Amino acid sequence: MTTPIEFWFDFSSPYSYLAMDKVEEVAQGAGREVVWRPFLLGAVFKETGNRPLTQQPIKGDYARHDCPRVARYLDMPWTWPDPFPIATMAAARAYYWIEREDPDTARKFARLAFNTYFGKGIDITPAEVVVNIAAGCNVDPAALEPALSDPAVKQALKDRTAEAVERGVCGAPFFFVDGEPFWGSDRLWMVKKWLRTGGW
Amino acid sequence: MTTPIEFWFDFSSPYSYLAMDKVEEVAQGAGREVVWRPFLLGAVFKETGNRPLTQQPIKGDYARHDCPRVARYLDMPWTWPDPFPIATMAAARAYYWIEREDPDTARKFARLAFNTYFGKGIDITPAEVVVNIAAGCNVDPAALEPALSDPAVKQALKDRTAEAVERGVCGAPFFFVDGEPFWGSDRLWMVKKWLRTGGW
Repeated sequence: MTTPIEFWFDFSSPYSYLAMDKVEEVAQGAGREVVWRPFLLGAVFKETGNRPLTQQPIKGDYARHDCPRVARYLDMPWTWPDPFPIATMAAARAYYWIEREDPDTARKFARLAFNTYFGKGIDITPAEVVVNIAAGCNVDPAALEPALSDPAVKQALKDRTAEAVERGVCGAPFFFVDGEPFWGSDRLWMVKKWLRTGGW
Repeated sequence: MTTPIEFWFDFSSPYSYLAMDKVEEVAQGAGREVVWRPFLLGAVFKETGNRPLTQQPIKGDYARHDCPRVARYLDMPWTWPDPFPIATMAAARAYYWIEREDPDTARKFARLAFNTYFGKGIDITPAEVVVNIAAGCNVDPAALEPALSDPAVKQALKDRTAEAVERGVCGAPFFFVDGEPFWGSDRLWMVKKWLRTGGW
């Protein structure tokens, strides 16, 4: 039995969006599953003192140039969403609520949410947008809508975010392979090598 | 005629050290030269609001784990230097002073300075340490020593650092290929692809 690759991300992280296909490809090549783990990157930024990419002088300009370039390379749809960044509580809560019943549908929802935000540039902050996206994955809107403000569902996301900080997730995307940490979409080459060799 | 790949770095940047062999390898594979461009990363941090890696909570821990891991992968010597980070004015001034006469010797000096700091963990802040390293590359200590406090030599480094900020160098290492910017040692795969394809 192999352990799955953990894929920690925020729905508002462009490089997480850009990594979502590649991590599945890398995992598949190694016969592994991917466990998707949305969290609130803002909580990590509070600890690290970082700010969202586009709010950083110079680095923001680079990111604005780089993200579409990576998207073209990967042949993924790309639109700089406005507003950016956004609060992704609704999407992340929805993810964990769906995942309890059906991880496959949760992943499908996550991909669709990412595509809506970074592919089409549509704001996924509002609960109703998230509920609509989930409806596209056959998730019952009448069940999901109240769940998004359910204290237990809120707590589940808080716990995951606390877990991220606790385990040293210093940015997004962040991956764990058998406990070994890898930060950044550009590290998937190393994840791949680590999976093949068992580490060095 | 092809233009050289520009390799912008700070002598106190671990990921720049870890990129120095690979960028030469990538350039060679594409029939290009590498122009080494030390600058003062602190000036960029002032603009971006960033701090040295190890001073950032969580991210610092990750870097402390990651740098030796990358070094092992690349089979490069690695010692976390103490103090870290350091002021690299002396090393960078020496580089440009040597480069005016002899770029090959300047590159040789730069590699040796990097190896002294990150390979052996020896502080290269003091001018006398830098002069000794240069002496190992057949640079006359009696000529270099006074040059390190020469106003024109100081200005040359200030100008390069201003150029880095001006051109959007948001961190180190940073590369330009025919004007196209690439940030981070993990982007050399993309530099390689860009060189081969001419961009996308």
